[in-house]
Parts: sequence; structure tokens; C-alpha cells
Amino acid sequence: MSQIERVAIVGGTHGNELTGVYLVKKFQQYPNLINKQSLETLVLLANTKAIAEGKRYIDKDLNRCFNKQNLQNSNFLNYEDTRAKEIKQILQPQNQPFVDVIVDLHSTTANMGLTLIFCDMHPFLLRLAAYLTSINPLVRVYVNPQSKEGGFLRSLCELGFVIEVGAVAQNVLNAELFQQTEQLMYAILEYFEWFNQGNIPQINNTLTFYEYIETIDYPRDERGEIQAMIHPRLQFRDYEPLNPGEPIFLTFAGKDILYEGVSTVYPIFINEAAYYEKGIAMHLTQKYQKVV
Amino acid sequence: MSQIERVAIVGGTHGNELTGVYLVKKFQQYPNLINKQSLETLVLLANTKAIAEGKRYIDKDLNRCFNKQNLQNSNFLNYEDTRAKEIKQILQPQNQPFVDVIVDLHSTTANMGLTLIFCDMHPFLLRLAAYLTSINPLVRVYVNPQSKEGGFLRSLCELGFVIEVGAVAQNVLNAELFQQTEQLMYAILEYFEWFNQGNIPQINNTLTFYEYIETIDYPRDERGEIQAMIHPRLQFRDYEPLNPGEPIFLTFAGKDILYEGVSTVYPIFINEAAYYEKGIAMHLTQKYQKVV
Repeated sequence: MSQIERVAIVGGTHGNELTGVYLVKKFQQYPNLINKQSLETLVLLANTKAIAEGKRYIDKDLNRCFNKQNLQNSNFLNYEDTRAKEIKQILQPQNQPFVDVIVDLHSTTANMGLTLIFCDMHPFLLRLAAYLTSINPLVRVYVNPQSKEGGFLRSLCELGFVIEVGAVAQNVLNAELFQQTEQLMYAILEYFEWFNQGNIPQINNTLTFYEYIETIDYPRDERGEIQAMIHPRLQFRDYEPLNPGEPIFLTFAGKDILYEGVSTVYPIFINEAAYYEKGIAMHLTQKYQKVV
Repeated sequence: MSQIERVAIVGGTHGNELTGVYLVKKFQQYPNLINKQSLETLVLLANTKAIAEGKRYIDKDLNRCFNKQNLQNSNFLNYEDTRAKEIKQILQPQNQPFVDVIVDLHSTTANMGLTLIFCDMHPFLLRLAAYLTSINPLVRVYVNPQSKEGGFLRSLCELGFVIEVGAVAQNVLNAELFQQTEQLMYAILEYFEWFNQGNIPQINNTLTFYEYIETIDYPRDERGEIQAMIHPRLQFRDYEPLNPGEPIFLTFAGKDILYEGVSTVYPIFINEAAYYEKGIAMHLTQKYQKVV
């Protein structure tokens, strides 16, 4: 890829994640904020019906609807399957690449700061991440290869990625996180402009990133009812080391449940509200450093 | 009133406020935790269908359905109106007082700590509050006489009140707040036991409380769309003084909006997720001290 010609900025893929929704609305109202000489920007509210109703989704999670089978199947009639096809028509008309980059704006009740989520180790994205982390130490990088097959909106594009900001409650706007996300978005567009001009800034080229290992569910009884909460000592400690023998859950009866792995891991997405129904209490990750 | 004979502990009046839901489930599983010699305890999950679906409500806010007109009207057919009548049958059968106290467990995305919400200045409740604040400085007292006519579940009983805990996201369990609420509930029941035995502990009898003045909405455009966020300097500052000229909102365009009142007030319910749709960005209160 020699030039980034077209960038899509997507908000409201989950209708109750207001940071992205209102940032996209701001860009729609003040398009000059994201005007760049060398590239075109396109802004999109994804799950418009869920946004109107203040819900994550209407019938099913829109951000799991972008796998091939789903997009080609004409039997599905629920709202999100239909909307996924409409969005594909916008971002990938005639099945041809149309946008070079998709930035999908999400928020989370976990304390993820400003996390970039990548599906793979694409060198262009890793260099972008190295630049962004060099100018803002709150920026974290999470690589989750699993998500490649998950039907995520960002998979419509080779350079699709998520900005996941938190901790913030569903259906709440946190002004500080809103402003941090906005500044991060400007830095990303500026980097693309520099790239197009062949003028990428010199930076520290060692990137710290976190790679997916597995998910852990809450302890549950035979009916699927959760039996424990995230341990107070783990709550909001995303990206901090968790060692074998340290507590991860606290049962309702007041008993600690310890992490029984064999080595240090780095939990993230700790206590994300929308993941209770998915059977996910947290993602475990491994920490790496890489010269990019 | 000479004796507290029967206490109702209610959770899940809003289905996505998990602290109360899981505390009631715990008490259902371990009833001995709330057994007292001199009084009977009754536990109840209020909006069972909303709890199952992880929503605040199905058709309308259950905690606005307990006004007389609504409870006597037989034309309403939506879920919450029906459920309100069922709950009234449990807590007030044959329109007779049956429970002496209702404790309705709520949570909020605002930083309310452990707040007791009273509809009026009932001397029994004020003395209870003075005791609870003396053993736990996190306990706050909010008196909202407006709420007397609001159709709240707690209005089924002269000594009905709310415990409002936060900050916690909707559909999230925060173990620390869960444990604090649980301990507060035990302290309340213990106080009732002492009262029944004529044996109330000696305490500092000066109570600090906050009384409702008015609500403030977000700045909105002609279509009702919000134009500003809670200002970062006000976020999570519930119960702290707000002086004239200090910022309360930040517009999406980045402009501060200042508080234009004439005297110091104490905002609470700042940035409660469920209040965006009610047109409430915060409640303003006045701070008082009273010998009780």
C-alpha cells in the first residue's frame, strides 16, 4: 500500500457506547475537523436503531455479523444482519476495497484506557501504534488474532482496527475520555497524512503490546447463574500483572478464588458489562515487546 | 410506632442495577444472614422480567408506577403496571400496612457512595441515619420530598427508603460496593433489633444531610439532542460544593458552561446513565446539619 486514500471513522457499532456515537456526531457537524489534504474521511453511525434506543443491539451483536456466511446469507431478516449488509455496501461496495482504513470507536466498563485492538501484526498498524504510544503513554495495544474470524466490522478492511476506551459506564458520556479519544483520532489522521507525504516521524521503534491468550468466565452454577464477582483487588487493574495464586474472583459467600495458571498474565476487559452474557469475565493476555 | 415487626428488602426495581439484585439473591440463598429475633425479614426481586433481560425496565420505569391513580387503574396492561400491582399485593395486602420498613436497593453511575434517600424528615429515619453515618463515614443522607408523589416503590410504606450505591456501571457487579451495601444492610437490621429491645446506642446526634433543590438538564438543541457533557471538573464530584462561576458542562465544541446560580450548591446524581432520557444531568441539593 502506497497511500491511505480513504479512512472510515465508525461510531455506535454498539448503540450504548456513547463516546464513539457523539464523536462521530461531532465530526458530522464539524467536518473540517477531520479534513486532510491527502485523504478522504468518511464518518458513519453503525447501529442507528440501537443508538436511538440506547441499547448495545436490537436483535444480536452487530459486531459479530460481518463474517462471510452471514453477509452472503439472504435468509436472515433480523435488524443487525440487515444493517451489516448495508454497512458492507457503504464500506466495501461491489466487494471491492473502497476504504483503506476503518477506525471503529468502542467504549468499555473495563479500565482499558485508550486501547488499539488489532486482528494481526500488520507492520503498518504496528508502526502507527508505536508512534501513538510514543506521544501518549495512555495508549495500549492489544493484538487478538482470534477476532479475525469473529465477524467484526473492522474485518471489512485489511487495516481495520478498534479504539476501545474506558472505564466508562454504558449510556454515559465521560468528557475526559471523549477528549482523549478525539485527540487520538486527530493524531491517527495526521500520521496517515505524513505517511502519504512520505514523511513519517522518527520514533522509538520498540512497541509494547499485549496478545490474547484466552478468556476466563465467571464461576457459575449448573443453571448458568454467576457465583462470584471480580475480586476487589483485580477490579480496574487491566494491563497489570496477575501472578499465580493471586485472587481473581470473590464468591457471594465471601470466599477468594485464586488464579491457578502457571505464569504471570495480564488481564484486560476485566468486568466488561456486555461480556457477562458472552461468558467472559476477562481476557488474559501476554505482554511482548517488539522492534517495529 | 413501637416495634419494627416486618422489613422488606427489595432488589432489582431496576433490572440492570446488579448490586441489589445479587444481594437479594444472596439473602434468598442464605436466609440466616438476615434472621433477627424480634423481626421478620422479607426479600423480593421487583422487576423480574427486566432483571432476566438485563434492562432497567421493559415498558416503563417500575419505580414510577406506585402512585395511587396508577395502582387503582385497571386499564393499564403493560408489564410494569401489572408488576406494580403484584408487588403492592405482597407488601400491602388489602391496602393494610403489612411491612413496617421497605429498603429498596439501587445503584447509580454517579459517585454517590452509600446514599440513603428519604422522602421526608421522619424522626425515626433521621435517627437511623445518624447512627449509620456515625459507624460509616461513606454513608450520605439525601432528603427528596419531591419523590413523595413520584410513584416510587418505597412509598408503599411510611418508613420506605432507598439505598443508592455508586459509582458503578449498569449491568456490572462491583465487589467492593456489594460488600459495603451488604454490611450497611446488616447494620440497619441490627439497629431495628436494638430499637425493638428498647436499647438504641448512644451516638453523636448531629446529622448532616442534603436536601433537594432542583434538577438541571443537559444543554440540548431544538430536537432534544444533548449539546454538552458533564464537565471533567464536575465528574464524580457528587456531594462536593459547586460555586457560582464554576464549570458544570463542556460543549462538544469545547466550550465551558458555568454554573450561574447565586450560592453554593451540592450536586448529586451527576451523570447518571438512566437520567439522560429523563432530562436530568444532576440534582442540586443544599447541605444542612440537624440535631436529631
